[in-house]
Amino acid sequence: MTKQVEFLFDFGSPYTYLAYHQLPRIAKARNSAILWTPILLGGIFQATGNRSPIEVPAKGRYSMLDLQRWANTYNVHMTMNPHFPINTLHLMRGAVAMQMRSDEEFQRYLAAIFNAMFEAPRNLNLPNEVGEVLRNNGIDPELFVGLVGDQAIKDRLKENTTKAVERGVFGAPTFFVGDQMFWGQDRLQFVDDALT
Amino acid sequence: MTKQVEFLFDFGSPYTYLAYHQLPRIAKARNSAILWTPILLGGIFQATGNRSPIEVPAKGRYSMLDLQRWANTYNVHMTMNPHFPINTLHLMRGAVAMQMRSDEEFQRYLAAIFNAMFEAPRNLNLPNEVGEVLRNNGIDPELFVGLVGDQAIKDRLKENTTKAVERGVFGAPTFFVGDQMFWGQDRLQFVDDALT
Repeated sequence: MTKQVEFLFDFGSPYTYLAYHQLPRIAKARNSAILWTPILLGGIFQATGNRSPIEVPAKGRYSMLDLQRWANTYNVHMTMNPHFPINTLHLMRGAVAMQMRSDEEFQRYLAAIFNAMFEAPRNLNLPNEVGEVLRNNGIDPELFVGLVGDQAIKDRLKENTTKAVERGVFGAPTFFVGDQMFWGQDRLQFVDDALT
Repeated sequence: MTKQVEFLFDFGSPYTYLAYHQLPRIAKARNSAILWTPILLGGIFQATGNRSPIEVPAKGRYSMLDLQRWANTYNVHMTMNPHFPINTLHLMRGAVAMQMRSDEEFQRYLAAIFNAMFEAPRNLNLPNEVGEVLRNNGIDPELFVGLVGDQAIKDRLKENTTKAVERGVFGAPTFFVGDQMFWGQDRLQFVDDALT
């Protein structure tokens, strides 16, 4: 039986971007499958009373240094998106929709959006910017707009988020290996251990 | 010139307890001195708008598991203190006072209080419990009471805390290597790197 690690993610979280780049390597080394679960971090925060680190100014400033230290450690290119905060509701609905279409399209979408969020930052609050990113990555923007407006997609993202809260999730990235929950890309070593 | 790592601590932080057990080993391996700086975490939280993880219930529950994972990783004995929250004002004033007396007495005090906080937990909200812990560790409780009531000691703790906030500190444990700040015992690898 293949082992599995579940990855709960929201494009708006820079630490999730770091995890996105590390988890596939870890999963592959441990012969494990990744279950990708799009969630809405804003909904998680609202339900749990948690909040973004940037809401504490000193913590927000420190996070910028901390993120860069991790990016250097991992040798990952990372640029903070100057257009923050970016509302990820449509983007996360898009993740749900792409996941339902095909794994290939889903992975292409993940790469495109994470890249436009933290590698070559774009203002993804603007629909035409999102459209351009999608088009550049071979995803039809009109199809996308149709999908993210679909009630079933909206409901699915809400359900993912509600279920996550019920399981104890309060932030992102969060990982599950069986019943064991791990929060933060800085706990990937524990995830690795749990898969071993 | 000997390298130096500054360690800003409050006995009330369980992650600081973990760091307390790891930092001396790291500093020794890197031929570095530890500068111990007692701070009042409650004052830091108040000044920065930060708060304890336990104020988000889901985060608090997860922290208990996370702390135990780290304790297992480090092979450190750790028990959550059932008498939480414990007001550490007098205990931190005591740290300032003991530090002014001698390094030997300061280290004995640190070991005694951290032990009574997270190893063999006592209700350190009660002065007679603190007194017994001190007596068992060769520190005169009456001397202690006199010292923690001393205005110079009170002022010094306040000053340590204010200065920490001015330097960007928002939580504990915090480490400085030169100008570089690191927050959290889970950043000890970065501290180690900075000392190397």
